Amino acid sequence: MLDVINLNEKFNLFNEHWNPKIIAGLNGQHVKLAKLKGEFVMHSHPNEDEMFWVMKGELCMRLKDGDKWIKEGECIVIPKGVEHQPIAEEEVWVVLFEPESTLNTGETVSELKREILDWI
Amino acid sequence: MLDVINLNEKFNLFNEHWNPKIIAGLNGQHVKLAKLKGEFVMHSHPNEDEMFWVMKGELCMRLKDGDKWIKEGECIVIPKGVEHQPIAEEEVWVVLFEPESTLNTGETVSELKREILDWI
Repeated sequence: MLDVINLNEKFNLFNEHWNPKIIAGLNGQHVKLAKLKGEFVMHSHPNEDEMFWVMKGELCMRLKDGDKWIKEGECIVIPKGVEHQPIAEEEVWVVLFEPESTLNTGETVSELKREILDWI
Repeated sequence: MLDVINLNEKFNLFNEHWNPKIIAGLNGQHVKLAKLKGEFVMHSHPNEDEMFWVMKGELCMRLKDGDKWIKEGECIVIPKGVEHQPIAEEEVWVVLFEPESTLNTGETVSELKREILDWI
């Protein structure tokens, strides 16, 4: 727990898209890194708010009432129950901050679902 | 809640040291920004883990068994109950992830205590 974590070193440990990796846990929450490319599924999390923090690239967050663009150095909190669809035209690196219970695809049935995440 | 938050713009809204500002809340946690310079007090949080993520500068985290240095782009999680003393020889900008209940000085009596934090 008391290791110093270098974010770029952690990002360089994996290349898959849409497969978040856990780098830290605290207070029942996980801090995760993910690389995104292409379109994810529209989904929502019934019980979990979710923070996306863009470290590289530009993320389009499609919402029911329009798109939000999140650039490097910017973040957004998606409240529980709000449908959202992350879209990355070019590769995007994000940090996620969310409860341990959060499933990447929320309540949506999708082959993109990842139930067991690696710690890196 | 659905605003896009630009971290640098938020950091540029204040100059005080050791006075965290809240930029987001989710799942009972706060995301805070703080500018640090000089020595804080040694303290611990009995019930809260705390994450420090350095955005600018280099932070020395003094622990009972030695110092940890956290550079820009690096982070550390201080588990509940672990005594720690942040020290910034030069100004350091950090992002903090911690429960809403977290008091900056923990259980230590200090004039640096901030009980009511601003949202920015």
